[in-house]
Amino acid sequence: MDQTSLYINTAPPYLKLNQNESLPVVMTIAGSDSSGGAGVEADIKTITSHKCYAMTCITALTIQTPTSVYGIQVTPKHVVSKILDVNLRDMRCNVIKTGMLTTDAIEAIETKLKEYDNGDIKSSRPILVIDPVMVATSGSFLASGDLKDLLIEKITPWADLLTPNIPECFKLIDREMDLKNTQDIFKLAKEVSIVTNCSNILVKGGHLPWNEEKKHIIDILYIGKENKFIVYEGHYTETKNTHGTGCTLASSIASNLALGYSLTHAVYGAIEYVQNAVSIGCYVTSEIVKENGPINHVYAIEVPLEKMMKDECFSAQELIPKPTSSTFSASEDFFTYLINHPKVKPHWESYINHDFVKQIAQGTVDSKKFKFFLEQDYSYLVDYARIHCIAGSKAPTLEDIEKALSIVGSVKQEMENHEKKLKEAFGVTGEKYLEGIKKGPALKAYSRYFYDVSKRGSWEELVTSLNPCLMGYGYALIQQEKYIVKNEGSIYYDWCQTYSSKWYREHVEEGRSLLNKIGSKCPPSDIDKLVNIYADVCELETKFWDAALNYEE
Amino acid sequence: MDQTSLYINTAPPYLKLNQNESLPVVMTIAGSDSSGGAGVEADIKTITSHKCYAMTCITALTIQTPTSVYGIQVTPKHVVSKILDVNLRDMRCNVIKTGMLTTDAIEAIETKLKEYDNGDIKSSRPILVIDPVMVATSGSFLASGDLKDLLIEKITPWADLLTPNIPECFKLIDREMDLKNTQDIFKLAKEVSIVTNCSNILVKGGHLPWNEEKKHIIDILYIGKENKFIVYEGHYTETKNTHGTGCTLASSIASNLALGYSLTHAVYGAIEYVQNAVSIGCYVTSEIVKENGPINHVYAIEVPLEKMMKDECFSAQELIPKPTSSTFSASEDFFTYLINHPKVKPHWESYINHDFVKQIAQGTVDSKKFKFFLEQDYSYLVDYARIHCIAGSKAPTLEDIEKALSIVGSVKQEMENHEKKLKEAFGVTGEKYLEGIKKGPALKAYSRYFYDVSKRGSWEELVTSLNPCLMGYGYALIQQEKYIVKNEGSIYYDWCQTYSSKWYREHVEEGRSLLNKIGSKCPPSDIDKLVNIYADVCELETKFWDAALNYEE
Repeated sequence: MDQTSLYINTAPPYLKLNQNESLPVVMTIAGSDSSGGAGVEADIKTITSHKCYAMTCITALTIQTPTSVYGIQVTPKHVVSKILDVNLRDMRCNVIKTGMLTTDAIEAIETKLKEYDNGDIKSSRPILVIDPVMVATSGSFLASGDLKDLLIEKITPWADLLTPNIPECFKLIDREMDLKNTQDIFKLAKEVSIVTNCSNILVKGGHLPWNEEKKHIIDILYIGKENKFIVYEGHYTETKNTHGTGCTLASSIASNLALGYSLTHAVYGAIEYVQNAVSIGCYVTSEIVKENGPINHVYAIEVPLEKMMKDECFSAQELIPKPTSSTFSASEDFFTYLINHPKVKPHWESYINHDFVKQIAQGTVDSKKFKFFLEQDYSYLVDYARIHCIAGSKAPTLEDIEKALSIVGSVKQEMENHEKKLKEAFGVTGEKYLEGIKKGPALKAYSRYFYDVSKRGSWEELVTSLNPCLMGYGYALIQQEKYIVKNEGSIYYDWCQTYSSKWYREHVEEGRSLLNKIGSKCPPSDIDKLVNIYADVCELETKFWDAALNYEE
Repeated sequence: MDQTSLYINTAPPYLKLNQNESLPVVMTIAGSDSSGGAGVEADIKTITSHKCYAMTCITALTIQTPTSVYGIQVTPKHVVSKILDVNLRDMRCNVIKTGMLTTDAIEAIETKLKEYDNGDIKSSRPILVIDPVMVATSGSFLASGDLKDLLIEKITPWADLLTPNIPECFKLIDREMDLKNTQDIFKLAKEVSIVTNCSNILVKGGHLPWNEEKKHIIDILYIGKENKFIVYEGHYTETKNTHGTGCTLASSIASNLALGYSLTHAVYGAIEYVQNAVSIGCYVTSEIVKENGPINHVYAIEVPLEKMMKDECFSAQELIPKPTSSTFSASEDFFTYLINHPKVKPHWESYINHDFVKQIAQGTVDSKKFKFFLEQDYSYLVDYARIHCIAGSKAPTLEDIEKALSIVGSVKQEMENHEKKLKEAFGVTGEKYLEGIKKGPALKAYSRYFYDVSKRGSWEELVTSLNPCLMGYGYALIQQEKYIVKNEGSIYYDWCQTYSSKWYREHVEEGRSLLNKIGSKCPPSDIDKLVNIYADVCELETKFWDAALNYEE
């Protein structure tokens, strides 16, 4: 007999500082989707991902997969009523979110809402978010038309938010409208608000017919009491992973409201959450299924055991055999491999041969554009410094930690150069001014990328993502060398000199050798991810210079 | 009419590198708990927290809260069968986890298992984890006795793991046993394995009657084929938050198995997850409820909108008014306030007046204990350096970033001192040796604390947690000054001199002024948390020295 003992690190004291935390509670009243992508299952996943507590009132069991709905087992009225009774008596409830409702469920909800108003239930009435599920993304009807009138008669007037998509709006107002632009949707939202007697309407744009190009997706929030419209604009994502988007959006809004955010913020966060979940998607269906797959509710979650296995303060770590690092097999060095990789090469080349740098070298650049560039780059460098700190914290050895930190010192020097130029050439001065620089879209996208890698990526991924900035400036100046106009005292010539200097070239060599070290220790299975990161960041660098070149005041 | 436009940062490129990731799929076949703490709801929460994809087959709707079960609506057999049919046909499924089963459900599961074996379903049979729910934590019976025989006849022989608690073990073997020690539980596990014809048995110790002191909780995994026992030992937590622990443990094991971990690891991770969820707990019931509340499934999740609001690459950030920092109202400085706070004072005083330091000062310390201390402290300093990197990445200004990093330099100097002493006094040398230092329990607990704060806490919390180490060594040496034996060339005297030096005192002053800066800007509502952190870390420091004082080879 073999016996092993393992110690469990229970009750971690820092986590216990939040002991018995009062989690915001969201109750979903909806149908169950056995395949887990929509309905109560999607709601619980969403509410959980928002660190809220989910409870349920299941109005029906639907037998379904992304392919089709194969059957519905409606929950009897006495069960729905009893669930609402005990849930709202024994549990706290901050927000109620409704999805697929039955006649019985609508009547049971109305009864409870009246009890709050009569004072029969002592606590304050939960916020009510109604997702008027009538037409699913796939086009199939989940609730019959008769329910619409009952919904409007009984419960929409109590709602704090209604979240119809366009076909649902038409159904609610009993007619179709020709929608050509946002103004038309404003009109639609107002009309829905009047018909449903509900002040706040979020018109979901997923099904918008008027935007032929499908490059943008627009959701519009109408806040009736303030006669105010918020337009949320995002990219359209070509994807089949749309099963459950409606339930998820409403649950995410409900969770954000339960957390205490304003309606405007709650909707913002929810759209971002759903768009990410849609664009990342997941593969969970079997091979025979060709239809809409589910969205990815868990993209932002970290696997707890994976974290424990990596961290030596958990005894799980003791069980793991040390990984043997397999050697990168490319014959050339990793940097050369990366910049010549078909995925990277076009981005690397447009980056290091950029017209904006050529214009700086020639001294012909528009001074306003150069000023904009310096400001954006200054702001970029603050992020760059922070991300090196995180790289330091993830580095495998003390030596690597120190190398990461020494770069922060150089970054500071670069920032001082920028500050000096801004002061001397443009009369710009003061900490307030520099801190107040507003990030443009190209910088925001770049910062977001760093933010994501530093949060979720490994040390190797992080170092790879930080490398193109360092290398590219060095190589760009080598490419433009013949164009450089040697005009002593010019800020453009001075700028060129910085990145052609011996000091900078030494940094480039250090960066190259660190990258090669990572390549040589990287398991072949991970090389692709590093290639993708390098390509992405070279593209972000190109767009950063594009933004300066195309800058208009 | 007022109109605002907001841009949604969709499709973040780094996250898209995992596009259509193949999420491990876990199907839970169990009853629904409307109040959300147990059953299918707890399963979905758990599976989601593990970054797996949950699908469901709901065997019954139970109307329940932590107070009681108020009613059960059993799902008809044809619905259960149909759900299993379409789920297992259209979706991938890595692991099936069962909870509360009905006769119909047991038969429907058996049918599917046979179809896998016959080759009627082409994909490979999912891993099967059976939580034989017969007695709930609160003592009420959720499944009738007749089911037990059916369970053993039909499906336990197919199971890859069975997770009974002690009363369930007795029920499965149809008799009670007198349990005095782990050996008795080994016997029980083997007998359960024989009766159920299932090779792997996890006997859950939550209900252990033989451990009167209740200081430890023990779970025992029997791996039949290897005749091997794994004993998982943890602290017992006095709590009322136990509703749903059984479902959660089995779902967590199922998720870890779906992620590809070995059984031993999967169980380790699951026990850790449940113990944390129990000891942290949550407050979600209404005031009238006095019974077991639910455990906290979401303790490890970060609120997505909160993250977006803090990060300037999300446009949500533009909506937020800048917070006005309210002033800390204590008349004295924050450091003085902290060390005199009733929660901190006892820990601070045992820390700075520790016998171990006194013995070093007097030069009477056992050299083996001192060597152990130096090694542990060396290993501690690597973590300390990493955590300062993270503090740097979270710091509000570039100046604060640099200050955090300059400390890493000093830490390195301290480590070199340690290395020198270990070499000169103990003949210990080489990087391999230093890297191979094994962390003792006191250091692990301390590292775990840093790990948790750096991962979840704010910059202010992190700086507060790093402060006691710096200040305490300085103050301890002031306290022990009169005992210091001035023995030039002694490693003990040399150690004392380091922490009494001008160099170190300057660091102490810097640390004090940083702490005061944080106190002065901290909203009064957050002060308590900083106090708790300071108390916790002073206690960890004391235990660190206790460990050295009590060290035996």
